[in-house]
Amino acid sequence: MTTSERSEAKREKIGFVGLGTMGQFMASNLVNSGFAVTVWNRTSERTAPLAELGATRAASPAEVARASDIVVACLTDSPQVEEVLFGPNGLAEGFSSGSLFVDCSTLSPLKAREFAERLAPLGVTTLDAPVSGASEGAKNATLSIMVGGADGDVERAQSVLNAMGRTVTHLGDVGAGQWAKAINQVILAGTYLGVAEGVALGLKAGLDVERVLGALRGGAAGSWVLESRSGRMIEDDYPLGFKISLHRKDLGIGLELAQSVGAVLPVTALAATFEDGIIAQGFGDDDNSALARPIRKLSGL
Amino acid sequence: MTTSERSEAKREKIGFVGLGTMGQFMASNLVNSGFAVTVWNRTSERTAPLAELGATRAASPAEVARASDIVVACLTDSPQVEEVLFGPNGLAEGFSSGSLFVDCSTLSPLKAREFAERLAPLGVTTLDAPVSGASEGAKNATLSIMVGGADGDVERAQSVLNAMGRTVTHLGDVGAGQWAKAINQVILAGTYLGVAEGVALGLKAGLDVERVLGALRGGAAGSWVLESRSGRMIEDDYPLGFKISLHRKDLGIGLELAQSVGAVLPVTALAATFEDGIIAQGFGDDDNSALARPIRKLSGL
Amino acid sequence: MTTSERSEAKREKIGFVGLGTMGQFMASNLVNSGFAVTVWNRTSERTAPLAELGATRAASPAEVARASDIVVACLTDSPQVEEVLFGPNGLAEGFSSGSLFVDCSTLSPLKAREFAERLAPLGVTTLDAPVSGASEGAKNATLSIMVGGADGDVERAQSVLNAMGRTVTHLGDVGAGQWAKAINQVILAGTYLGVAEGVALGLKAGLDVERVLGALRGGAAGSWVLESRSGRMIEDDYPLGFKISLHRKDLGIGLELAQSVGAVLPVTALAATFEDGIIAQGFGDDDNSALARPIRKLSGL
Amino acid sequence: MTTSERSEAKREKIGFVGLGTMGQFMASNLVNSGFAVTVWNRTSERTAPLAELGATRAASPAEVARASDIVVACLTDSPQVEEVLFGPNGLAEGFSSGSLFVDCSTLSPLKAREFAERLAPLGVTTLDAPVSGASEGAKNATLSIMVGGADGDVERAQSVLNAMGRTVTHLGDVGAGQWAKAINQVILAGTYLGVAEGVALGLKAGLDVERVLGALRGGAAGSWVLESRSGRMIEDDYPLGFKISLHRKDLGIGLELAQSVGAVLPVTALAATFEDGIIAQGFGDDDNSALARPIRKLSGL
Repeated sequence: MTTSERSEAKREKIGFVGLGTMGQFMASNLVNSGFAVTVWNRTSERTAPLAELGATRAASPAEVARASDIVVACLTDSPQVEEVLFGPNGLAEGFSSGSLFVDCSTLSPLKAREFAERLAPLGVTTLDAPVSGASEGAKNATLSIMVGGADGDVERAQSVLNAMGRTVTHLGDVGAGQWAKAINQVILAGTYLGVAEGVALGLKAGLDVERVLGALRGGAAGSWVLESRSGRMIEDDYPLGFKISLHRKDLGIGLELAQSVGAVLPVTALAATFEDGIIAQGFGDDDNSALARPIRKLSGL
Repeated sequence: MTTSERSEAKREKIGFVGLGTMGQFMASNLVNSGFAVTVWNRTSERTAPLAELGATRAASPAEVARASDIVVACLTDSPQVEEVLFGPNGLAEGFSSGSLFVDCSTLSPLKAREFAERLAPLGVTTLDAPVSGASEGAKNATLSIMVGGADGDVERAQSVLNAMGRTVTHLGDVGAGQWAKAINQVILAGTYLGVAEGVALGLKAGLDVERVLGALRGGAAGSWVLESRSGRMIEDDYPLGFKISLHRKDLGIGLELAQSVGAVLPVTALAATFEDGIIAQGFGDDDNSALARPIRKLSGL
Repeated sequence: MTTSERSEAKREKIGFVGLGTMGQFMASNLVNSGFAVTVWNRTSERTAPLAELGATRAASPAEVARASDIVVACLTDSPQVEEVLFGPNGLAEGFSSGSLFVDCSTLSPLKAREFAERLAPLGVTTLDAPVSGASEGAKNATLSIMVGGADGDVERAQSVLNAMGRTVTHLGDVGAGQWAKAINQVILAGTYLGVAEGVALGLKAGLDVERVLGALRGGAAGSWVLESRSGRMIEDDYPLGFKISLHRKDLGIGLELAQSVGAVLPVTALAATFEDGIIAQGFGDDDNSALARPIRKLSGL
Repeated sequence: MTTSERSEAKREKIGFVGLGTMGQFMASNLVNSGFAVTVWNRTSERTAPLAELGATRAASPAEVARASDIVVACLTDSPQVEEVLFGPNGLAEGFSSGSLFVDCSTLSPLKAREFAERLAPLGVTTLDAPVSGASEGAKNATLSIMVGGADGDVERAQSVLNAMGRTVTHLGDVGAGQWAKAINQVILAGTYLGVAEGVALGLKAGLDVERVLGALRGGAAGSWVLESRSGRMIEDDYPLGFKISLHRKDLGIGLELAQSVGAVLPVTALAATFEDGIIAQGFGDDDNSALARPIRKLSGL
């Protein structure tokens, strides 16, 4: 894409629905990158900071769609996406032929394809573009974005995606991004549990665990989790980040996909049942690193 | 430490025993850094490349100790360290008062302390200095080195350790390095299994897994294992690296320590029993990333 | 219930839908106990042996319902029950006010309640009455039957249930039987894996495992699985019994229920993902004892 | 064995060392069966009830050995057996050629063979005869006894073993009994965890779990654990029984054996690490059914 094409792309009007932990930062980065952005959120007060930055507030998803060429969504789960797309005053009511829907929510690839197929008759094309990197990745526009969809649509959305993330990878047709995200969450489960077990061992031994983990960072045990989340596990305090209840939802998708293709995921299965307990005990809004809770608890910490 | 002190330290004569996958590179880096190094290995042919670089070959550990001020060991396990230290023609026979023994082998902290206590009456001091970073870390002198021992001894060995690794962290008294290494291996187990499960899911789904994992690298699932070892898991080919049989030994240490302090390590326990099967089936000399084997096998890959 | 009441109950006409591994025996036992039974099965040839015993064949579930006072179902899963109840020519078309539906299929308690609520407006009452004991329990009428529903309905169905099982326990309202069955399947998962691990250890050690297990039977490790299923694990041959694909479906129900109430089930979660692999590899029609396959495979057997 | 032979066997004088939870009952049963029994225990007050029944008290294991033809031991672990056999005033000092040592303790088969080999030069033969069935099995003489040793020795000890257990199985040479016991403990781990998960699911759902489990007893989920230990799990109160710290020791033996032969035991590995936490938190003297603790705790019960 040449510079002139990119500036043309910027001239496309952008809509953004879903201003949660991640979405608020992603939408801000779009505004700050010079895009004209129209925003909507279920609880409207969350639109205020965006409006201050220069975004336009809309009263409904339909209104967002009418005001935009490309609409980005960052929602919790597939029922919510379905509601925002096809419910009353949903995006589908406002889309016109040629609209592009970029869904940064994490869904099953099957749901992503289903929604794309329901939009197609309206002349609307879809990219699934789930992200990884937690709130700090969203804030600093360093997210990894995993994209599924048609080449032309990916090209068209490139400058939008670049404004929100550092690594944008086109992985195949619609749904391919969601497959990658499911794999991301599976890998994350094992990495979290590995670090949690190391933390528990060090704490029980009475070591200065922060210092110990500092010594390991550059070695084979190094990871984003070790670097960015082990401190929370040591403190037993789990500010967001990324909600563990959402990770549990994503592991549910991963385990369903695994069942459908016959992949056997013992550690993911353990993580999922551990997270069920965490959530039921009222910690679902904790950061994903709260996956250390059951390991700590089993260890009497 | 000032530059002049460092150059003085370099004038200390170094011994090195144990030229395996890791040790050969570590000893080479010492020679290449300008140290006078005397080497010994159980199978003497492995000393030839070191001799070509300029190292002196010794006929026994005792001879190494007699020729050196500081002796570095990089051996397989505590029985081997005990034999090389206290067996016939062992290091203990050659050490003189003031010798410093730097043990880069991975042992139980209890064994590290026991050996240090047996050396103390000879006037020999000990550092435990296990390393992480696999063969490429050893080759490129980018190892993480976790050090336990007295301040003065750590200072004395600093230039030696710096010649072999990038991060050298002093963590406490003798044994503290081994505690950190045990934690390293525990964290590694979870990280390996997490990546292995992600790889299995992607392969079963028929995805271009290398491309998918490339998309995840910069995100929350990023790790040294993902970066450096997922390719082997995709290919189902596990060249060294770091032997999985040694990782199993280290997990044995980790699980014993966990039992002694009451830490509960479910994923580590799973990894250890999986590795038992891998080793019994003849793959103990594979790289640690062969921990993907049972996950692949369970998934019918 | 007095003898005369029981003989009166016997005069109720019975319908039976679903003549699979379990259902064929259960229906036969009803016929052999003197009930007038009308049968239907999706593939009609399975009705022939029942007809020979004296049962009447019906062309559709609706016809069964019209011919019967009490209809017993023994179907695979909730979509199948929904189809047979509410699909074209389904039971609901034939039921009349006062009909009693006894569902021996294994479903989610939520589905059991949903179906009962949809039948209620027709004047039809429901018992959920899932069973445990595998094909030999069905054959020998030694099943454990876990019943949910109203007192009066349980009383009315008592002689029918007694003809199929040895232990009939009324556990609460509609759905209570399904809760108990989910718990049964969870317990079974751990018991199977425990026995499978014992078998694998014995086989790898080269012991006469059948003799060893014989020695354990009367002790603390004794169980129905040890008694009745360890032989299949030793032989690595898994004739029915009870299909492992159905157990996997049931564990899915158990894990969903666990998630909803916050119970953490690590061994069940492991069993479920192991079974995913077994089924994907083409062994879903094996007996449940094939849960030994992954343990054998991991152990190189 | 004819009646006259059995009465002759009864004329052999019996020694018994180790009057713990199990041993006190086993020794009592020997006395009550008409054997002349000499007893010793590390803490001598435990010999008083046996003396009241008619046993003779000895001041040391050596004295027991001198007074007896056959000595039965029921001790905690191999260090304790080694001490009682070969320590000062140990059995070995009192044995004479022709003595038979029947070890009902649970040890590694390797240790059992080692001790037998050390006794052989004294003319002393050995049976390993570990038991299963917990304190009630010991009390009611319904233990399962797994025996390794020479045919003649088993025949000689038959009436002694029959006085303590219901099922006595000769499984091979010395060590064979211990192999069977290790397998017993492995199977038990899975069975306990399976029942514990079922209990947790039922409790979280607010069911009358005792009634639910009663309904399952005769079905496929039936086991000694379900029958005899689920009540403790429901009450979260774990009176002996059989100490969980001893089960952990036995799982350590099982996992070591598994490693040596390449058997992969994921559930056993989980149980062992769970038990480490239980014991470290001060519950090592609880009954084995306390393996429900971590499942309850994870589930927030």
